[in-house]
Amino acid sequence: MAVEAVFKSWQNDRAIIYRRMNDIPEEWGTAVNIQEMVFGNLNEKSGTGVAFSRDPSTGENKIYGEFMWNAQGEDIVSGARTPLPIEDLDKTMPKVYKEFVKYVHKLEKHYKDMQDMEFTIENGKLFFLQTRNGKRTAMASLNIAVDLVKEKISTKERVIKSLDPKLIDTLLHNQFDPKVTKNLTPLATGLAASPGAASGKVVLEADKAKELAKNKVKTILIRQETSPKDIEGMQVCEAVLTARGGMTSHAAVVARGLGEPCVVGCSSLQVFEKDGYVMFGDKVIKEGETISVDGSTGNVYLGEVSSVPATLSGNFKTIMQWCKDIKKIGVMANADTPSDVKTAISFGAEGVGLVRTEHMFFKSEKILPIREMIVAQNLKERQQALKKLLLLQRKDFVDIFTVLKDLHATIRLIDPPLHEFLPHTEEEQKILAKATGKTYEQIVEIVNSLAEFNPMMGHRGCRLAVTFPEIAEMQTRAIIEAAILVSKKHKIDVCPEIMIPLTCSVKEFEFVKSIVEKTAKQVLEEKKFNLNYKIGTMIETPRAVVIADKLAKQSDFFSFGTNDLTQLSFGFSRDDAGKFINEYYDKKILEHDPFVRIDEEGVGELIKHTVKLARAEKPKFKIGVCGEQGSNSDSVKFLLDAGVSYVSCSPYRVPIAILAAAIA
Amino acid sequence: MAVEAVFKSWQNDRAIIYRRMNDIPEEWGTAVNIQEMVFGNLNEKSGTGVAFSRDPSTGENKIYGEFMWNAQGEDIVSGARTPLPIEDLDKTMPKVYKEFVKYVHKLEKHYKDMQDMEFTIENGKLFFLQTRNGKRTAMASLNIAVDLVKEKISTKERVIKSLDPKLIDTLLHNQFDPKVTKNLTPLATGLAASPGAASGKVVLEADKAKELAKNKVKTILIRQETSPKDIEGMQVCEAVLTARGGMTSHAAVVARGLGEPCVVGCSSLQVFEKDGYVMFGDKVIKEGETISVDGSTGNVYLGEVSSVPATLSGNFKTIMQWCKDIKKIGVMANADTPSDVKTAISFGAEGVGLVRTEHMFFKSEKILPIREMIVAQNLKERQQALKKLLLLQRKDFVDIFTVLKDLHATIRLIDPPLHEFLPHTEEEQKILAKATGKTYEQIVEIVNSLAEFNPMMGHRGCRLAVTFPEIAEMQTRAIIEAAILVSKKHKIDVCPEIMIPLTCSVKEFEFVKSIVEKTAKQVLEEKKFNLNYKIGTMIETPRAVVIADKLAKQSDFFSFGTNDLTQLSFGFSRDDAGKFINEYYDKKILEHDPFVRIDEEGVGELIKHTVKLARAEKPKFKIGVCGEQGSNSDSVKFLLDAGVSYVSCSPYRVPIAILAAAIA
Repeated sequence: MAVEAVFKSWQNDRAIIYRRMNDIPEEWGTAVNIQEMVFGNLNEKSGTGVAFSRDPSTGENKIYGEFMWNAQGEDIVSGARTPLPIEDLDKTMPKVYKEFVKYVHKLEKHYKDMQDMEFTIENGKLFFLQTRNGKRTAMASLNIAVDLVKEKISTKERVIKSLDPKLIDTLLHNQFDPKVTKNLTPLATGLAASPGAASGKVVLEADKAKELAKNKVKTILIRQETSPKDIEGMQVCEAVLTARGGMTSHAAVVARGLGEPCVVGCSSLQVFEKDGYVMFGDKVIKEGETISVDGSTGNVYLGEVSSVPATLSGNFKTIMQWCKDIKKIGVMANADTPSDVKTAISFGAEGVGLVRTEHMFFKSEKILPIREMIVAQNLKERQQALKKLLLLQRKDFVDIFTVLKDLHATIRLIDPPLHEFLPHTEEEQKILAKATGKTYEQIVEIVNSLAEFNPMMGHRGCRLAVTFPEIAEMQTRAIIEAAILVSKKHKIDVCPEIMIPLTCSVKEFEFVKSIVEKTAKQVLEEKKFNLNYKIGTMIETPRAVVIADKLAKQSDFFSFGTNDLTQLSFGFSRDDAGKFINEYYDKKILEHDPFVRIDEEGVGELIKHTVKLARAEKPKFKIGVCGEQGSNSDSVKFLLDAGVSYVSCSPYRVPIAILAAAIA
Repeated sequence: MAVEAVFKSWQNDRAIIYRRMNDIPEEWGTAVNIQEMVFGNLNEKSGTGVAFSRDPSTGENKIYGEFMWNAQGEDIVSGARTPLPIEDLDKTMPKVYKEFVKYVHKLEKHYKDMQDMEFTIENGKLFFLQTRNGKRTAMASLNIAVDLVKEKISTKERVIKSLDPKLIDTLLHNQFDPKVTKNLTPLATGLAASPGAASGKVVLEADKAKELAKNKVKTILIRQETSPKDIEGMQVCEAVLTARGGMTSHAAVVARGLGEPCVVGCSSLQVFEKDGYVMFGDKVIKEGETISVDGSTGNVYLGEVSSVPATLSGNFKTIMQWCKDIKKIGVMANADTPSDVKTAISFGAEGVGLVRTEHMFFKSEKILPIREMIVAQNLKERQQALKKLLLLQRKDFVDIFTVLKDLHATIRLIDPPLHEFLPHTEEEQKILAKATGKTYEQIVEIVNSLAEFNPMMGHRGCRLAVTFPEIAEMQTRAIIEAAILVSKKHKIDVCPEIMIPLTCSVKEFEFVKSIVEKTAKQVLEEKKFNLNYKIGTMIETPRAVVIADKLAKQSDFFSFGTNDLTQLSFGFSRDDAGKFINEYYDKKILEHDPFVRIDEEGVGELIKHTVKLARAEKPKFKIGVCGEQGSNSDSVKFLLDAGVSYVSCSPYRVPIAILAAAIA
């Protein structure tokens, strides 16, 4: 019966959730060991205890444990009696304690890691019941790792392998004080989309967050879901909370990029934007009230909760350096602004694998010219708007190249559907009408005519360059002119890599490539300057995978856009999958979110196929991955094995990717 | 210079459009032949003419031609002088005429086809300048083909190869009288999406078409674009005209399925539905005015235009029978109603390759229960609605099986996003509220909550069966119960094939398959009956291609959904691609519409890969194609070579597919 209970425990809720959190396949099942019993409750010379060979909170090299006289394991676990600190054993049974210490060290040396042990003393005789590598805090894991190497108990490679990249994530963000939160009941719990913790006043519109930010008021932006026009508000607020969306919704991706706490898919949350309040279940919270959001747990609390700052001990840097020495795959960052680039470099990025030029457009001074460009009804109107954008984009690139110096940047030409940039409120539409000399009705009509049924598969990516080559010309000019300016000023060789998104055919790639080449040549002649630049393509459509050999022949590099490739391979829209993906987990159809970890069986095969075709054409061809899955530790190993040259992820995930790469 | 002009002519607009219409690659280029000149204008004993070895309008076996004394070829072409009928030559130069007739027969015999020849008589001596296979009407092509075989000039295989499947299409539909249309200027021209011609009164709403149909008023339905809720209106109107959409938009696909004329993407058309009028450029047409729509040319005319009915001569049947004997790939039909099935069988379909069960739901008596099912907030509410649907669906399947007798039907479980079925007008929403006992506000909220960003990649296909297994249970029960009823009544073995759409993983397929199997077993036990049925899957997602071997192991058959597979491979949304695909043609990036003809380089490779993986697992595995591309003549050849077992297309395209299959 007891054995059966153990087997059954594999299917209890806690076990299922634990497996999902720790990527343990359900098929593995559990095992049962049967062994002779020793009795810690035999008499007063008997007892039982648990101990760690080092402090699991701080990592200090000091045995940490507790024990109890005349007791069994469950007496300690139940908390009915208060155990004694392990040092007390030294006082009553110094010989046994000495023996205990000897074996603790022996076990640690044998397993080359901090041990979590259970022991029993039966009538004065010591038995070890169990030993295993001990769970520890993120901080302790780093300290122990460095100490184990210093003490020559383990090696750099071995300690790095034992580190958990997910744990490291928490070191990079503020945390609520666990002493405080353990006594609090959350208002609601959503998906923990971007780690870190913050408190602030509730705002329901991005613009309000911006306005309050001017007076240094801390805000939490709550939205039904976010859209690109919320970006400035998201930048200035402390945390983002949405009612809808999954781990890779717009809010989640942008917040992770900003290194900002974010909770999404909070199903008990209802947002009444116009009326200025939200409800968590039955509880009404008005705009201006203070709440606290924990992006590491998904919890939302009423009122302010005190937090502890992210502290990076010196050992963190040591470990990162070791990782860099060991890893065999490049780690780059997805960064769209000079400050992103600075953060990424400070976290160890070797360059920028993805600059999303459209993210620059959402800043307020640029949104009007881009809107003018989109509503232009002829080439002349469009070129007038592009002239304004050229100056703004060139400055962006100058700033980025200046921070990067001789590190590389891969710049993606404009990617999302134009519709995303357009104004949807009457007020904004009227401003645009005034700026363009069009009537309000005309603007409304143009905005409506640009709506799409399935924008993710619509007029976007390099299709924009095919229909409006002048946009690609403007962007190329901005990039090359900026590269020349920075090369001259800092006497370095800036070598920009221009990346064409969403390619699906060779002729399409050649068409856009020819625009870029022609423009670059023209700029270099005008400025009488010589400069290396590269033109590559993203592999995002399954069709591009099929023709990867032909595309490789024409391009200087590939970069997998694993988000789009995953969407198109499954036919799962990232923003809509939230409606059914939980059922896929519950019914054990999916064990991982393919937008978080590369789906090895499907998308992974497409990646391997692409690498094979491309390298058959060009053996040293550079192939990167710039989806967020690139920083997932399991995916990094897979990608390394697949032959990918580098991964690129948001700045705050760079250290995780570096560790994952070293482990891989 | 003349030679240069010939080379240049390859790039003039007419040549480019001709190439696109006839699938001639641009790279081929043109050639120039230089030869000695003979002079038809040397003297009165000279002349020139053109002739066909048989009548190109009717196919009658009689030389048809005209000539002119003392003239060159351009004199005939220019129309400045009136030529004489070829028989006149017999009167003035009987010897030359005899020689001419001899060579005409010789040429026809040599080329084994009707010849279109140019000839010149120089001073009484006959020269043939050129001969080629003659262009002919659809009717003539069939008559000539049958005659050539009867006269033993050619073989069945050879004449069938020379037939143009596109030409056959026009034989299956009414046409405007060409004598009338040649003197008319069209109001506008759009994409010729579904052949045939019709006149009727303009209506702008599907409901109005239905109302007028009660009084037998013929209507032309004009919409910005159609949606599934327009289907009943589309069924009763004479033709459909839309301002937006491409060759595979909803309107185009449904109209082709109905065998009804349709013009889409009519860019000069603006629809003012609420105000009851449309504009073609500046011209206003009010509801109730009569227009005429030619789905074979894309032309729209003001007023009524007289039409000539489709006439199928006995030779058509002869040819179809020959084709059936020759072809090596099955031809099935996509049919959703008993009348569709009847049409398909009369046109030679060997069964039904795709029953789209959701199309049944759009009929008015079924739309309310399906809406009740969708807005159900718990299992009990949903099962109440499903009970009503079960009876309705079972009747549909009984009717279909009864028409099919021992021919097979492949029935696809519900596929589109649930949102498509929901009411979007206040009136309909209030009806639904009343029927379900919910408030109007609740219905609005549910409708809004079901909206999706990218419905094509959203909560649809087998994902509906994963989240709501009770829907798949109801559909399986309806299919199996109907199969039992018809098997008993007609003493036949109905063997339904149940098809699971949009599969992307093996576990997902197994999950849905287990629901179908469990339900089928239960029904068979209840009814104490034994019945064969099959469970297969559609291959529509690129991920399904990657795992095709594993899926084949679990399923009884595959059917490629080439529309979805094309959408996901390119990342082109069928309904949005219209915005950029013309630029892709203009810039020569695409030469064919991948939704009309299989994209062999990309999607085609995925098809070949799937067939290879599946057949390695099960050598005789049945694999079909049920996208409209299956009836494209070039695609049929490709699919045959790829190893596909059958194609399935709309009933009105079945003869075309049969011919294409025989040619392949």
